[in-house]
Amino acid sequence: MPGFSFQLHRQDGGARLGEIATPHGIVRTPAFMPVGTQAAVKAVRPEEVRALGTDIVLANTYHLMLRPGAERIATLGGLHKFMNWPHPILTDSGGFQVMSLSPLRKVDADGVTFRSHLDGATVTLTPERAMEIQDLLGADIAMQLDECVKLPAARADVEHAMQLSLVWAERSKRAFEHVEGRAVFGIVQGGVEPALRLESARAMNELSFPGYAIGGLAVGEPQEVMLSVLDLVTPALPEDRPRYLMGVGTPEDLVEAVARGIDMFDCVLPTRNGRHGLAFTRFGAVNLKNARHADDPRPLDPESPYAPAREYSRAYLHHLVKANEMLAAMLISAINLAYYQELMNGMRTVIAAGRFADFREETRALWSRGDLPPLT
Amino acid sequence: MPGFSFQLHRQDGGARLGEIATPHGIVRTPAFMPVGTQAAVKAVRPEEVRALGTDIVLANTYHLMLRPGAERIATLGGLHKFMNWPHPILTDSGGFQVMSLSPLRKVDADGVTFRSHLDGATVTLTPERAMEIQDLLGADIAMQLDECVKLPAARADVEHAMQLSLVWAERSKRAFEHVEGRAVFGIVQGGVEPALRLESARAMNELSFPGYAIGGLAVGEPQEVMLSVLDLVTPALPEDRPRYLMGVGTPEDLVEAVARGIDMFDCVLPTRNGRHGLAFTRFGAVNLKNARHADDPRPLDPESPYAPAREYSRAYLHHLVKANEMLAAMLISAINLAYYQELMNGMRTVIAAGRFADFREETRALWSRGDLPPLT
Repeated sequence: MPGFSFQLHRQDGGARLGEIATPHGIVRTPAFMPVGTQAAVKAVRPEEVRALGTDIVLANTYHLMLRPGAERIATLGGLHKFMNWPHPILTDSGGFQVMSLSPLRKVDADGVTFRSHLDGATVTLTPERAMEIQDLLGADIAMQLDECVKLPAARADVEHAMQLSLVWAERSKRAFEHVEGRAVFGIVQGGVEPALRLESARAMNELSFPGYAIGGLAVGEPQEVMLSVLDLVTPALPEDRPRYLMGVGTPEDLVEAVARGIDMFDCVLPTRNGRHGLAFTRFGAVNLKNARHADDPRPLDPESPYAPAREYSRAYLHHLVKANEMLAAMLISAINLAYYQELMNGMRTVIAAGRFADFREETRALWSRGDLPPLT
Repeated sequence: MPGFSFQLHRQDGGARLGEIATPHGIVRTPAFMPVGTQAAVKAVRPEEVRALGTDIVLANTYHLMLRPGAERIATLGGLHKFMNWPHPILTDSGGFQVMSLSPLRKVDADGVTFRSHLDGATVTLTPERAMEIQDLLGADIAMQLDECVKLPAARADVEHAMQLSLVWAERSKRAFEHVEGRAVFGIVQGGVEPALRLESARAMNELSFPGYAIGGLAVGEPQEVMLSVLDLVTPALPEDRPRYLMGVGTPEDLVEAVARGIDMFDCVLPTRNGRHGLAFTRFGAVNLKNARHADDPRPLDPESPYAPAREYSRAYLHHLVKANEMLAAMLISAINLAYYQELMNGMRTVIAAGRFADFREETRALWSRGDLPPLT
């Protein structure tokens, strides 16, 4: 069973082409990780997730520790077997969902105590417990426990959370050291404060993690603010370790972040939008709820490499959305994931060929062109 | 484009092996038709419906006339193209759903007037309009408009509805005569009154339809009552025309009805139960909501020919059901349809070999054995 490693194959401007080896296989970077919150990518079967070009999925520690439970999944043979996904898995630490989902959370130096959003039970998550859970799940890549503050926040609160996250980073790393072949990533915090971000990146660097995430972004701030943090942080991270921008993003976010040296992403957007009738195409987003599609026999994109984007009419997809048919969520989620993975694959191809800058321009031009004009 | 025809290949006791030719391909009988109420089999993609061994699906005229509208579907190229199902389609006439779904319905000799359950609009369905809609949809097999009464009902009401359905049968047939290559089936009514059922069957026979349905059953009566009606009606129907038992049923209903000479079925049970966590297997039904499955690493059936029934643990399916993941409905609906089509295929195989009686006994014995005992 080969252990975790990262190889940087090529740089093209800021964009990087690489490969992460894990015990469950290779992740080609830049990589997009579909989100399987509750051990399932919503509305898409695992073999389809794979067929769409996915190397790695993300699963949420917070949800799985509460239901069905990490010990149960371990007894059942681990998360890969449980969810019928024999390929790489990254798990988050649970910290972000504690902040966003659970009522009555209380943070102290030791960890965070909260009420389960499912049954109200009191649960404590320490760095050591977060790592134990991710070990039980069998994650190929685990994440340190961090404290996330809701933005906007006072500088002192952002700084306190950043410093606490550093302490927890060291404890997380130590707690995962005995796990062979798998990796834990540190998370750079610091909100949108340049000095705090730099301090966090430098301190993380000293802890020498096998990979680094940038957390606490894409939480409502404008895109240029997020990108300016990347401009600041990525140069402070070591070149020979993968960089993961957590919870990002739109197709445009992905291209702009890859341009700034990011290697990994996760986001619920393709599947969440898929459940709400919003499709991603080469020409931007298409709202299939819109009545303009009701009589439109054209497919979403006749030149898509993914058959459902070519074979189903907009009229039919519109009908399925309006009629609340599950097939709407199934088809549009898969179409969106296909588009995301096609975009990642496109970026990997052009970085290899040294043509990333052109690709970025061409891709943006297609998005600006926008969707087909309505039929008249 | 070959037209509708039926060939009876073999009889084995009462069970019949045959083949229906339609403009969109062959239907091997006995056949089970998954229900695509709103032009979609719920939670299963059309290519998967096909791969599971489905020759023909049913779509509901009532739903489609109200949304997205029959004229719209015709303009878009017909129902086959609309729902990306290039294989045979049978549509019902809308009569049954008018009774079960719409408030304020009013029946007179000309047709039925009702309020749409979607927007309250007043709609009139005559035999001529029901056939026009099914022609617009492009159904390979259309159904006559009939009047369905809710059972239990007074004999006079059952008789009146049966007589009215006969008049509408003739009008439906005449209204569909100009449609080349496609067929309209007559529907035998008469509730659970033997004399009325026989009168209906004889009168239908005289009208000489290319196929006959038996309607108004599986509406809550005990199975033996339904089977006794079949014992009475099927001998009164011509041997050289297919016989379709509408809205049936459980796996046991299918086997018992095939034993009595039925060739076609439709039912929402496999997909509806799939959305409620109930799986069909060779050993009977399995309620995956049940806590006994929470720690059970075993698949639903390690010897199923359908991979998801072998590859996912009961523990995982239980988790998906409890967590309200769409993937639960997707997997269990497909597992159920796979089981239904496997059962139909099994029946066709043994009828060809003259072994239907043995198969019926063996299949019933497996069902009686029941599901695996819980893990201890």
